[in-house]
Amino acid sequence: MLFKKILIANRGEIALRIMQTCRELGISTVAIYSTADKNSLHVKYADEAVCIGPPLGKESYLNIPRIMAAAEITNADAIHPGYGFLAENADFAEVCNASGIKFIGPTAEMIRKMGDKNSAKETMIAAGVPVIPGSDGLVRDTAHALKTAEKIGYPVIIKPTAGGGGKGMRVVNEPEKIQKALLTSQNEAQQAFGNSGVYIEKFVESPRHVEIQILADQHGNTMHLGERDCTIQRRHQKLIEETPSPVVDEALRNEMGNAAVAAASAINYEGAGTIEFLLDSDRKFYFMEMNTRIQVEHPVTEERYDVDLVKEQILVASGESIADRKYRPKGHSIECRINAEDPEHGFRPSPGELQVFHTPGGYGVRVDSHGYASYKIPSNYDSMVAKLIVTAHSREEAIARMLRALDEFIVVGIKTTIPFHKQLLQTEEFRSGNYDTHFLETFTFKKT
Amino acid sequence: MLFKKILIANRGEIALRIMQTCRELGISTVAIYSTADKNSLHVKYADEAVCIGPPLGKESYLNIPRIMAAAEITNADAIHPGYGFLAENADFAEVCNASGIKFIGPTAEMIRKMGDKNSAKETMIAAGVPVIPGSDGLVRDTAHALKTAEKIGYPVIIKPTAGGGGKGMRVVNEPEKIQKALLTSQNEAQQAFGNSGVYIEKFVESPRHVEIQILADQHGNTMHLGERDCTIQRRHQKLIEETPSPVVDEALRNEMGNAAVAAASAINYEGAGTIEFLLDSDRKFYFMEMNTRIQVEHPVTEERYDVDLVKEQILVASGESIADRKYRPKGHSIECRINAEDPEHGFRPSPGELQVFHTPGGYGVRVDSHGYASYKIPSNYDSMVAKLIVTAHSREEAIARMLRALDEFIVVGIKTTIPFHKQLLQTEEFRSGNYDTHFLETFTFKKT
Repeated sequence: MLFKKILIANRGEIALRIMQTCRELGISTVAIYSTADKNSLHVKYADEAVCIGPPLGKESYLNIPRIMAAAEITNADAIHPGYGFLAENADFAEVCNASGIKFIGPTAEMIRKMGDKNSAKETMIAAGVPVIPGSDGLVRDTAHALKTAEKIGYPVIIKPTAGGGGKGMRVVNEPEKIQKALLTSQNEAQQAFGNSGVYIEKFVESPRHVEIQILADQHGNTMHLGERDCTIQRRHQKLIEETPSPVVDEALRNEMGNAAVAAASAINYEGAGTIEFLLDSDRKFYFMEMNTRIQVEHPVTEERYDVDLVKEQILVASGESIADRKYRPKGHSIECRINAEDPEHGFRPSPGELQVFHTPGGYGVRVDSHGYASYKIPSNYDSMVAKLIVTAHSREEAIARMLRALDEFIVVGIKTTIPFHKQLLQTEEFRSGNYDTHFLETFTFKKT
Repeated sequence: MLFKKILIANRGEIALRIMQTCRELGISTVAIYSTADKNSLHVKYADEAVCIGPPLGKESYLNIPRIMAAAEITNADAIHPGYGFLAENADFAEVCNASGIKFIGPTAEMIRKMGDKNSAKETMIAAGVPVIPGSDGLVRDTAHALKTAEKIGYPVIIKPTAGGGGKGMRVVNEPEKIQKALLTSQNEAQQAFGNSGVYIEKFVESPRHVEIQILADQHGNTMHLGERDCTIQRRHQKLIEETPSPVVDEALRNEMGNAAVAAASAINYEGAGTIEFLLDSDRKFYFMEMNTRIQVEHPVTEERYDVDLVKEQILVASGESIADRKYRPKGHSIECRINAEDPEHGFRPSPGELQVFHTPGGYGVRVDSHGYASYKIPSNYDSMVAKLIVTAHSREEAIARMLRALDEFIVVGIKTTIPFHKQLLQTEEFRSGNYDTHFLETFTFKKT
């Protein structure tokens, strides 16, 4: 039976997005909000709204007892977590379901299995999904390093088990250089993190980020809805997503899709989910991680596959079967994230008032946004103010449409990534589809 | 060869709509505008803009010499007329083409043939397209009236050849009443219009307005893109349009589509066009008129058939063949016209400043509008400020989506038809699809 009232445990555009679908389904909505968000559009739009605390995450959007209290006071029979915040918090899912309030997403057990990197990797290997080959555990000595590198093939990368940010990492192209690289890496790791442990992995050259959308019901039906290419990233932050990927053909799509379905089926997955892969220049793909929730970039899949993924999340959570679903892909869809950031100054956040906020429209253009004129973007949360999604018959046409829509998008009062997207979309690299996740390290934004 | 620069001989949303497609095609745009429109979005958006005169139509948007001068000054190689104003002015088409500037639409001859009601009707009869049966010319006497009514079948309507507004019209259901009705009608016509001439037509009971979208190229290829149901009208002004029609099935669609293609082919039609039909309660259809231009309601066809009709207009005008086009219909699309009118007070115009103008977004929602916050709607032109178009898998889903999108649409500063649409879409009649062109005569808007 369909839910009567859903509490949306989130804010911003995704809260609004979920409420839109609820309204279309005739389901009442409850917004929760922090004091920083009292003028937020998701609060105005909801049928009911409950202020649950101060801006700090743990006082409001991450505070499970307060959210559960809001759900109980308003008599909500389900909770949609959106993305971020508690969306992949297994305890939250557990508390919801224990309280008789359906968590719209997978079970706590599934979230835990995929949330732990090691257990996720093991699950994938068992399901026959390719993972990046590497040493079993830490490197013991030079002989062990050489033997591992020999097995997985050069180039390899030596990585500290602690820390991050590239410190202590060494790429090695030939056996002669293993010993020296190992020692340097261990020394740097010791100095930087107080832990000299390192492991070895196959070095994926020129990788692309390609992920597969999964949809699964409670009756064992699991399907995939193709890929999204999210290779355009700045410091692991996705900026542009599209489907289909300019480098994935039908054969590779089937291969990756089947691997993703196998992965999800292996844990009896329920709901919408995403399997993220690295794709190397030889078109080999490797499991990175699974996101057990709706993604920011879900609209490009919705457009190409003509499917309301939030509606599907709600329907499968209410027990509906997806056995009869037939979603056929068509056209090309691209999303640009419009962030309140200043691309002229290292993408520093640019919160403030949207004095003018004029969104583009017309054929093939979709805007998902909680922005409105006179809205003050709080500095407490992420900087995304809109997702601009265009769909067209071909990638070339979609790029042209995106450029004209970006031209129409007028924001005054804050800096945004709009001019950045305009420049990026006109580069030879982007147009040709020939780039990897490192592209933005060399792309320079020109002052406008 | 594709045009380099197009002058758009129009204003408002359609001017913007055409410019969006031009920009996607890499074609430069020239706006023309009257002094009343200097702050209009189409002026801001165009690559170049030429002020051509004062607000009065004949001084600007209807002034052919001034528009031609603007086209020549800016070196435009084509003119798109949009709808209204000069869009169906054969002289304008002739002057454009004589000046070596391609008129994006059919030739002057085609416009003339379809612009004159008599010649259009004759063309349709010759092409085998059903027209409303009636007397050949004026009724001579009672015997002639009886014979005609016998032939076309009761009920019939007696109509004065002069005037309009229902004056002198008589619906007759049986032969016994013909003589009296004829005399009354003739007397009333004489008194009202000084002309006692009347003619007889088959009375179409409970008619619906169903029109067929046509697309034709210069090489003899003509296709139809299904129907639009525009039955929701107030005083012959369309307010809601949708496709597919709730009363047209595949067989009837093919029949009407083939008739429309035959009609367009009969005059070697070129460009986008619409054949408007009356559809009676027995599912018989009759030719009303042909519009030799893009229609206000074209977006619903664009959404269901996944086609950019303005792009097609431009491409066929440049000589491209449509022989390879395969547009397959999918889903259900509805458009609501958001007018600056006060539904509480007889839809009187409500020009003024858009103090707040927040348009809806999200999955399945499209907005075509020249409105923006702080824009002052001039009182000189038509009152439409936006077209809100939603698309979904079914009619029921589309209605739910339209209602949620109307909820999101916030306009402050003027009165609009938004609350009217909300009420209308929730009536039993609209939901069931069971209504005719007279529906709004009995539907009462409730003060909100």
